[in-house]
Amino acid sequence: MKICGFLQKNNSMDERSRMVKNLLSCDNSGGEARFRRTEIDFSNMFARDLLPAKNGEEQTMQFLLEVVEILTNYIRKTFDRSTKVLDFHHPHQLLEGMEGFNLELSDQPESLEQILVDCRDTLKYGVRTGHPRFFNQLSTGLDIVGLAGEWLTSTANTNMFTYEIAPVFVLMEQLTLKKMREIVGWPDGEGDGIFSPGGAISNMYSVMIARYKFFPEVKTKGMAAAPRLILFTSEHSHYSIKKASAALGFGTENLILLKTDERGRVIPADLEAKVIDAKQKGFVPLFVNATAGTTVYGAFDPINEIADICEKYNIWLHVDGAWGGGLLMSRKHRHKLSGVERANSVTWNPHKMMGVPLQCSAILVRERGLLQGCNSMCAGYLFQPDKQYDVTYDTGDKAIQCGRHVDIFKFWLMWKAKGTVGFEQHIDKCLDLSAYLYNKIKNREGYEMVFQGEPQHTNVCFWYIPPSLRGLPDGAERRERLHKVAPKIKAMMMESGTTMVGYQPQGEKVNFFRMVISNPAATRSDIDFLIDEIERLGNDL
Amino acid sequence: MKICGFLQKNNSMDERSRMVKNLLSCDNSGGEARFRRTEIDFSNMFARDLLPAKNGEEQTMQFLLEVVEILTNYIRKTFDRSTKVLDFHHPHQLLEGMEGFNLELSDQPESLEQILVDCRDTLKYGVRTGHPRFFNQLSTGLDIVGLAGEWLTSTANTNMFTYEIAPVFVLMEQLTLKKMREIVGWPDGEGDGIFSPGGAISNMYSVMIARYKFFPEVKTKGMAAAPRLILFTSEHSHYSIKKASAALGFGTENLILLKTDERGRVIPADLEAKVIDAKQKGFVPLFVNATAGTTVYGAFDPINEIADICEKYNIWLHVDGAWGGGLLMSRKHRHKLSGVERANSVTWNPHKMMGVPLQCSAILVRERGLLQGCNSMCAGYLFQPDKQYDVTYDTGDKAIQCGRHVDIFKFWLMWKAKGTVGFEQHIDKCLDLSAYLYNKIKNREGYEMVFQGEPQHTNVCFWYIPPSLRGLPDGAERRERLHKVAPKIKAMMMESGTTMVGYQPQGEKVNFFRMVISNPAATRSDIDFLIDEIERLGNDL
Repeated sequence: MKICGFLQKNNSMDERSRMVKNLLSCDNSGGEARFRRTEIDFSNMFARDLLPAKNGEEQTMQFLLEVVEILTNYIRKTFDRSTKVLDFHHPHQLLEGMEGFNLELSDQPESLEQILVDCRDTLKYGVRTGHPRFFNQLSTGLDIVGLAGEWLTSTANTNMFTYEIAPVFVLMEQLTLKKMREIVGWPDGEGDGIFSPGGAISNMYSVMIARYKFFPEVKTKGMAAAPRLILFTSEHSHYSIKKASAALGFGTENLILLKTDERGRVIPADLEAKVIDAKQKGFVPLFVNATAGTTVYGAFDPINEIADICEKYNIWLHVDGAWGGGLLMSRKHRHKLSGVERANSVTWNPHKMMGVPLQCSAILVRERGLLQGCNSMCAGYLFQPDKQYDVTYDTGDKAIQCGRHVDIFKFWLMWKAKGTVGFEQHIDKCLDLSAYLYNKIKNREGYEMVFQGEPQHTNVCFWYIPPSLRGLPDGAERRERLHKVAPKIKAMMMESGTTMVGYQPQGEKVNFFRMVISNPAATRSDIDFLIDEIERLGNDL
Repeated sequence: MKICGFLQKNNSMDERSRMVKNLLSCDNSGGEARFRRTEIDFSNMFARDLLPAKNGEEQTMQFLLEVVEILTNYIRKTFDRSTKVLDFHHPHQLLEGMEGFNLELSDQPESLEQILVDCRDTLKYGVRTGHPRFFNQLSTGLDIVGLAGEWLTSTANTNMFTYEIAPVFVLMEQLTLKKMREIVGWPDGEGDGIFSPGGAISNMYSVMIARYKFFPEVKTKGMAAAPRLILFTSEHSHYSIKKASAALGFGTENLILLKTDERGRVIPADLEAKVIDAKQKGFVPLFVNATAGTTVYGAFDPINEIADICEKYNIWLHVDGAWGGGLLMSRKHRHKLSGVERANSVTWNPHKMMGVPLQCSAILVRERGLLQGCNSMCAGYLFQPDKQYDVTYDTGDKAIQCGRHVDIFKFWLMWKAKGTVGFEQHIDKCLDLSAYLYNKIKNREGYEMVFQGEPQHTNVCFWYIPPSLRGLPDGAERRERLHKVAPKIKAMMMESGTTMVGYQPQGEKVNFFRMVISNPAATRSDIDFLIDEIERLGNDL
């Protein structure tokens, strides 16, 4: 592989001259060693030639710089609308090997040149989740400062269990969690919390802590020590509450689904009726999950009304703000979570609406000590009480994990770089864009909204009705045909690689598109493009 | 901030001339844009000036290159023995702000120059876990290819839940898991598995799956649907089994601890006696955990004898090879896991003995379908059955998580780069080093081994006896004083920043050092250094 310089092909000769001058005039006398790129043939080099190999420093630096070039080219193209979002291939195609891209592992090492090719191919056949026209998930975009933070995190390669080996990251986590609790509205940001591997695990924590609060003996004696415990969540809530009820030994049948209004918000009266019903059966209502920003509709459950019921019946209130929590950063939109300060615990995923790279999810708990009490096992080899520093900073025993990935740094660094106001601007902009989309299609020919009225979050749910279906009366045939429209358009979208948006059915409703906007790179023109693309691909269905 | 070139300060003028020539002669006509570094003042630039900002490309590239320079300098120093392992400060010192390093978050953005300073400070006050003299945890070292893989993973910034948005990574995970199952010894590598956020979660999966296998109704009806279920694990096993028993609703009292021999290995007769005892009480023995490489002693439980008992009584056998699983890659050492192919499930953390960057942990399951059956909830918005590709590749519903970090790529890339033989060499070398340490100190004055005989893994457990204690008879006073020796030496070690090694008590045994070697950068001279350092610091205690 030939490395022949640092210059972009479109550099003017003036620029080149200036750079060369810099190169020649730089003495670097006071500073640290600076990197340079030179000509290296990687085809005869192997991993064993890199550090810690003797004299491996130069090769190591050159190899890493070569990787960085691959990555920076990828980043450049990610933001370039003339690049496709993806280059779709079926599993069997990739498994058979695309143009020599061989996924199989072997006994003998590959050269570093091949490793660099593998890196390029991996990116080539992947999906550009940071592309301005990628709208497929709640987590989209590629924040540059967050990315830099993640590169640093990987380089530091440490673990959150003790202050001993992650002093700076442990403190950053504490300060950031406190700030998040202040924003939730708990007095002086008091309480507890931890970053966990995703919203599903954060929600699982909330159920565990609720159980520990009311029935601490379950920790030692198991579920047999408790009466029949009932959990409540809405029909529209995230499936992780159901996963938690199965995993933690409650059983999914003891998770009661609450009815929602047309917009997907819990009907508080239905909650109260079901709580009373459970109590009459001799069961114990333990836990209510209120969702702040449902996955599909983006609905916010009425937290205050739910909190009234929880207080009345002494039930733990959890707010799943994995998706909607970010709105707390916006003075304009935080009213949608009104009452969140009454929750006992809150899930909030900065990796969704706040654009932090994956993964970054926090579980916040109002009462201090519960996380520790619920999960601590006091392993002697990690949490020695006789260390020389204040061991209350060893937070690892609060976690259900032992080793824990450093998820805090990228978030902390982004917060430093954007400020609270920067997150607010980002969120307001995304909500403005979704309002633009909503207003664009609400009365447009060929579109039907899944629910009426302006969305609460950036979720815009709609059917595209191809011309061939527009005359059909509502009924089984139309429903059946409409059900197939979104999957067909999505498949063509992926084949052409121009944009990506999600679809799903919901309850009685046949497949519809769910548009979500969390990508800071998206503009009105990208929204227009999406609509044009749906019409282009769907017109003849 | 002044960026003045690419040259290391010790470059000869000859090298500079050659590079300059390359710069000038390079036309880049056929290739992609190549990066260069230029002079940029970051003190007036902010995150909002980076991509996706209009015309933000150049600043973005320069900012990232500046970050890379910070990281490559850090990497260089990490492998340099004249650099300290850490620059220790107490929590209150860091919180008060070290030389302007302010951890507090604010409303307004910081300049990109300050962000770069923050990055430098974060690394400065952290711990160099890749340093050749960092022996403090089971995960040590900094693998360059693995690191490159992690940088790419962050840049791809996607999620493992579906083939749709992680096609390459999903396939890499499948192929790698199959390879691992082949190495475990399951016919044709059949079975199932998933990468999870650490060994504790992998172990938790094993308990969940065992329960689902024998009592699938617990998923819907909760633990009330099952009889009293008993889990077994050794006194020396990892605390994650206990965490799982608490979290999943078994209760820690229903986890029976098994006696071990002097070397920390389970005594099979004790297991059988306790199984019989549980059955006589009317309880149901469900699950046995055999540890392959305990955390402190590095002991391998006798899997074959345990498997005989599990087969006899129809109990799920899990092997926790989080730490010892790596030895399966070594023809010389894999006999220590003899019988592992009889396990129903296996935890194996490549981020420990195999040197993969954090986090990378696999749970392997012999029977196909259980993971899916146990955890699937069929969320319509992610796992649409009407996609255009083979949706059996959408593996997300097997997980207890929803979003799942891409942990596979760095491991896959390392395997490509090292080959199976490369891992074998690494493991054999680490075990040789630990034998060197063992032989060095076993008869050395001032040392006592915690258990006799050559260690099975790289764990070498020992007391250092300062001269002042050497004449004391065994008894309460000696024990009490000896208990304080390791913490004191460790504290001084951290203050001086020269090396790091762990200590802990175990059962009746007072604090002792646990040396572990997984760092590919470590050599005999580093082992010698550690011993010298312990003696230097501990001599006058």
